[in-house]
Amino acid sequence: MSRLDETLSAIVSVDPAVGEATQALLDNKTKPRGSLGELESLARRIAVIRGEEKPAVLPAAVVVMGADHGVAASGVSAFPQAVTGQMLLNFAGGGAAINVLARAAGARLVVANLGTLEPLNGVEQVRDLRVGPGTKDFTQGPAMTDTQLRQALEHGIALADELAEQGVGIVALGEMGIGNTTAASALAAAYTGSTAGDVVGRGTGVDDAGLDRKRAAVVKALELHHPDANDGLGVLARLGGFEIAGLAGLALGAAARRMVVLLDGFISASAGLAAARICPTAAQYMMASHCSVERGHKRVLGALDLVPLFDLRLRLGEGSGAALALPWLLSSLRILNEMSTFADAGVSDSGA
Amino acid sequence: MSRLDETLSAIVSVDPAVGEATQALLDNKTKPRGSLGELESLARRIAVIRGEEKPAVLPAAVVVMGADHGVAASGVSAFPQAVTGQMLLNFAGGGAAINVLARAAGARLVVANLGTLEPLNGVEQVRDLRVGPGTKDFTQGPAMTDTQLRQALEHGIALADELAEQGVGIVALGEMGIGNTTAASALAAAYTGSTAGDVVGRGTGVDDAGLDRKRAAVVKALELHHPDANDGLGVLARLGGFEIAGLAGLALGAAARRMVVLLDGFISASAGLAAARICPTAAQYMMASHCSVERGHKRVLGALDLVPLFDLRLRLGEGSGAALALPWLLSSLRILNEMSTFADAGVSDSGA
Repeated sequence: MSRLDETLSAIVSVDPAVGEATQALLDNKTKPRGSLGELESLARRIAVIRGEEKPAVLPAAVVVMGADHGVAASGVSAFPQAVTGQMLLNFAGGGAAINVLARAAGARLVVANLGTLEPLNGVEQVRDLRVGPGTKDFTQGPAMTDTQLRQALEHGIALADELAEQGVGIVALGEMGIGNTTAASALAAAYTGSTAGDVVGRGTGVDDAGLDRKRAAVVKALELHHPDANDGLGVLARLGGFEIAGLAGLALGAAARRMVVLLDGFISASAGLAAARICPTAAQYMMASHCSVERGHKRVLGALDLVPLFDLRLRLGEGSGAALALPWLLSSLRILNEMSTFADAGVSDSGA
Repeated sequence: MSRLDETLSAIVSVDPAVGEATQALLDNKTKPRGSLGELESLARRIAVIRGEEKPAVLPAAVVVMGADHGVAASGVSAFPQAVTGQMLLNFAGGGAAINVLARAAGARLVVANLGTLEPLNGVEQVRDLRVGPGTKDFTQGPAMTDTQLRQALEHGIALADELAEQGVGIVALGEMGIGNTTAASALAAAYTGSTAGDVVGRGTGVDDAGLDRKRAAVVKALELHHPDANDGLGVLARLGGFEIAGLAGLALGAAARRMVVLLDGFISASAGLAAARICPTAAQYMMASHCSVERGHKRVLGALDLVPLFDLRLRLGEGSGAALALPWLLSSLRILNEMSTFADAGVSDSGA
């Protein structure tokens, strides 16, 4: 059995009864029942994912995967393609937004190159998991071969296994890749049966002409590939990106290890949706952080049956929104572990 | 001149041009312009409040003030009045929600007793700023005397001065007081010209009969006192609580020292509104954290012209929602201070 198949067979359904036990613990804490609202839901949700009613405060990691996209040749981004590699080096240097936000959240940051146009040689802080020199232009043919897809997925799985061995319990998905909102749009349209108009947005900020080119590229790709929404792997090979496939593998590997898969923006959510189309049970391990301004994001979260925690009008990616959600996930676990009960503290309970 | 009058005369209008300088700094960071959305707004807003384009990452404090309320005699709460003192002791012991959330946010927690029914003797971790044994029932007469109001306000101002001397830059307002959503409702109605029906909610969780009693108490109080919305001090003396007046003083003192005043739920927002009715310029120093489920909260934030950052369906108080917002405020400052510019990092700018 391949590593991918082994991973898929290890993903089991969660048990909602664990969440009820967690809620019973929360209901004895010195506060009116339910008064911490969605923070209590977070604690329940993490408990269900971990399969234990009182999970400890879990170490978290933000994983940022980067790659280039053949579709960038269609003029779909406001930035030149060289920026993908430049930004991976910026992550290595510690000066990008996600470096700051991961540090602020107390999370480890792992950066991996799944396929920049040019290799990044000898950069210690960027893992070299390069599957190829960017994907092919999916308006002309499949973005990647089945072998490349398998490699990217298994790189993600291997990373999930490594993080699980190190005790990480929450994995936040981040990405960098010039052109990748176009790939995510094509995936979102294909997996949810939406039109290009439903899912294409301005990404990092293209102008009206760029937006027209993005829409046209997605329309052309859908006409060329006639994607089958239920063919999780096939759609991902035809329309995906190496970093998106790597993140889908990471999500599958994390689900198999009962880690929380925390989604960020539109691209990471599309990777999550790809994982869920490959293995529907994997969606039970996912949580949404925010809803971005990218128009397809809400539709992808809807397809995953996930409700975002907040909307700060973000449109950066890199895992930035997921990093901003991490303090809430960790606080929900601290509430569960550190708060006194009515009995401990000698506080009268209303019974309400 | 009294300490209150000195403080009021020290509150000056902010300069919006500082925020433009901050945005120019953010626009050179290695990310598409504006792509961090409301996180960039937070950095601008804090810069404007501090009056410097690049404020350092500021130490934060959560201040929880507690007191009892005469109106509790009308059966307006799901909890017995003894819980106010019990919860102050719980804060002292470190086991309440706000202890956990302030620790998680890396913020200092200051707990003060502005007026429990019975004194809390010899509890080192609770400051004794007790103005009286709870307020009087405002359905029968004024909640407090003008002297008591002045004392409570000046306790808050003194605490703001102390925190400013210690370098604190962000003060989050928290509270505890059985019956205090009824007081906050009466204040909200009086200051915004709303009816009891517009502002009274279930607080920590009263049943339908309790909700009727709360509404009736507010109706009766408004009929008795005929409050004048523009009489900031008069309304607060008639309908407020000692902890609400203390927090209003804290907000005024913090504004005078150019500290960020971070509001929590309905009660702390009502204290903020009281401060703004006493000195309208003070509102320029306030920021809203969340919108709670308490129905009057949105109306009070609207009167302060503040937009909340998130809605987690909280209804606890104690400063809990403000503590959950603190990581975002601090992250916005870290973005401003720690991110590389395009030039530093050798990343190509789109100019977009």
